[in-house]
Amino acid sequence: MAIRIFVTGGTFDKEYNELNGELYFKDTHLHDLLELGRNKVSVVITTLMLIDSLEMTGKDRDAILQQCISCSEDKIIITHGTDTMTETAKVLAENVKNKTIVLTGAMIPIKFGSSDGLFNLGGALAFVQTLPHGIYVAMNGRYFNWDNVRKNKLTGRFEELK
Amino acid sequence: MAIRIFVTGGTFDKEYNELNGELYFKDTHLHDLLELGRNKVSVVITTLMLIDSLEMTGKDRDAILQQCISCSEDKIIITHGTDTMTETAKVLAENVKNKTIVLTGAMIPIKFGSSDGLFNLGGALAFVQTLPHGIYVAMNGRYFNWDNVRKNKLTGRFEELK
Amino acid sequence: MAIRIFVTGGTFDKEYNELNGELYFKDTHLHDLLELGRNKVSVVITTLMLIDSLEMTGKDRDAILQQCISCSEDKIIITHGTDTMTETAKVLAENVKNKTIVLTGAMIPIKFGSSDGLFNLGGALAFVQTLPHGIYVAMNGRYFNWDNVRKNKLTGRFEELK
Amino acid sequence: MAIRIFVTGGTFDKEYNELNGELYFKDTHLHDLLELGRNKVSVVITTLMLIDSLEMTGKDRDAILQQCISCSEDKIIITHGTDTMTETAKVLAENVKNKTIVLTGAMIPIKFGSSDGLFNLGGALAFVQTLPHGIYVAMNGRYFNWDNVRKNKLTGRFEELK
Repeated sequence: MAIRIFVTGGTFDKEYNELNGELYFKDTHLHDLLELGRNKVSVVITTLMLIDSLEMTGKDRDAILQQCISCSEDKIIITHGTDTMTETAKVLAENVKNKTIVLTGAMIPIKFGSSDGLFNLGGALAFVQTLPHGIYVAMNGRYFNWDNVRKNKLTGRFEELK
Repeated sequence: MAIRIFVTGGTFDKEYNELNGELYFKDTHLHDLLELGRNKVSVVITTLMLIDSLEMTGKDRDAILQQCISCSEDKIIITHGTDTMTETAKVLAENVKNKTIVLTGAMIPIKFGSSDGLFNLGGALAFVQTLPHGIYVAMNGRYFNWDNVRKNKLTGRFEELK
Repeated sequence: MAIRIFVTGGTFDKEYNELNGELYFKDTHLHDLLELGRNKVSVVITTLMLIDSLEMTGKDRDAILQQCISCSEDKIIITHGTDTMTETAKVLAENVKNKTIVLTGAMIPIKFGSSDGLFNLGGALAFVQTLPHGIYVAMNGRYFNWDNVRKNKLTGRFEELK
Repeated sequence: MAIRIFVTGGTFDKEYNELNGELYFKDTHLHDLLELGRNKVSVVITTLMLIDSLEMTGKDRDAILQQCISCSEDKIIITHGTDTMTETAKVLAENVKNKTIVLTGAMIPIKFGSSDGLFNLGGALAFVQTLPHGIYVAMNGRYFNWDNVRKNKLTGRFEELK
């Protein structure tokens, strides 16, 4: 069965608006990345929202949760802003039991050349195929259980709580 | 314990010689890729050789095998040219029993901008952390057991034998 | 004699701060660009300031003017934010008579992969070597006299006033 | 009047064939480069051939010459392999009198990320607009008269004969 990818936005999909110099969302770049990686894993991509994760509300998280519950796939990747990735993971962990869900993102927008997005996506796709049911964050080449991870605000890297 | 990465060359590390227009090897780009991916997994990188896999000899494969046996790590990634990746995998499978070894590579050199190398490396790092002992090929977002994979010469993609 | 390049900032040199998601200035990328272009023209690069041109004050423009007057070179390139490039050009035109000064910039930061900066820099270097004394803006493959150019805010392109 | 651009191939337009690891020509990338540079100069692009300049014959050069003579534009850019760029320039210089023709190229293919092509194209477009009638080579930020330039095979850079 295919792997479901839910797009929610985050740095991953931000672009530079050359008319006003601001960062914004236009469309997801997931398809381009998978093509660049010559991906042959069967995936279904659904864009749920394109927002900065600092602006993600409880209602948004509930929408993501409902999609994770109702989709037929049991392997799910969620692309997500890094700042509140662990909050969304917590909501999912409390409500989804029989699926493998991997949240991933990027520190640099995919469109900006030196992005970590392709590396993280490659890792997320591998982890979702091999990890047992559960909710995980995959960043920096590593995977973390949802209840033992935080983003270190000083370094921008993800690490265990203990 | 750290993950061991053995570099053998392949398209992954090829560069363009602007003086004569030919492709050649100068040095591995693994370190740059891991930095780009903001990798935080502990790795030890050893360059065993930098050759096109079509020119890899039995002696070369034996050298790779000996390194896989003698290194203390039980999680190993080998970057390798795609053309004979499965041959090397076979040699390893017949002689290494208690380690997880993942061979990966790229269809486009890392230095050429539109490379799949970062995606494959992200996948290989994830697979080697999660798959049980055995010899695997990781390409195109997928992993294959060493005895059920071939490179399709027409498409350049890896696929199961059956 | 060498060509003098004065760096003032602008989109050209903006970078993405991966810790807070904001654009900022760290250092100029002029040296990298000239290396990428395999430039062999003798240049002297001086960073006068690294600011967004919307924040450029009369005092800043006066500092640029004094540098243009006092430097020994008579061929000068100024990298500058596009929004007020023509204002600075006007100040220079009223006070510098015996030099060729070319202002240029970029719509996309050099670090963001799809930048027009390398194209504009190649053009500016060529124009400054070939145009007679005067103050010019070089953008979009074209050059404009300082008193017949504006940035079209809707399209982001530079065009003649009449 | 528009500027005519004649494409002849060269490193500029080479691509990497991921199925056999060889470099080849598929199509010109001039349109992509001009779009990247947000070019607003009116140009007409004609692909005359897509070959390595080491394989360019007298017949090929004659074809280029006839096109330069018969086209209505008097400002012409020719993208050309660097190895025999000066030979073609000589043929043109002996037969075209009332036009400005600028030959340019690249040391690294445009598709390979770290190319000098965008820089050289920006320079060539500027030089062709400003130089008097004559035949020139524009590389490395500089322009050379056709009869006072050679490619230094050791450094890959263009330089005066004396």
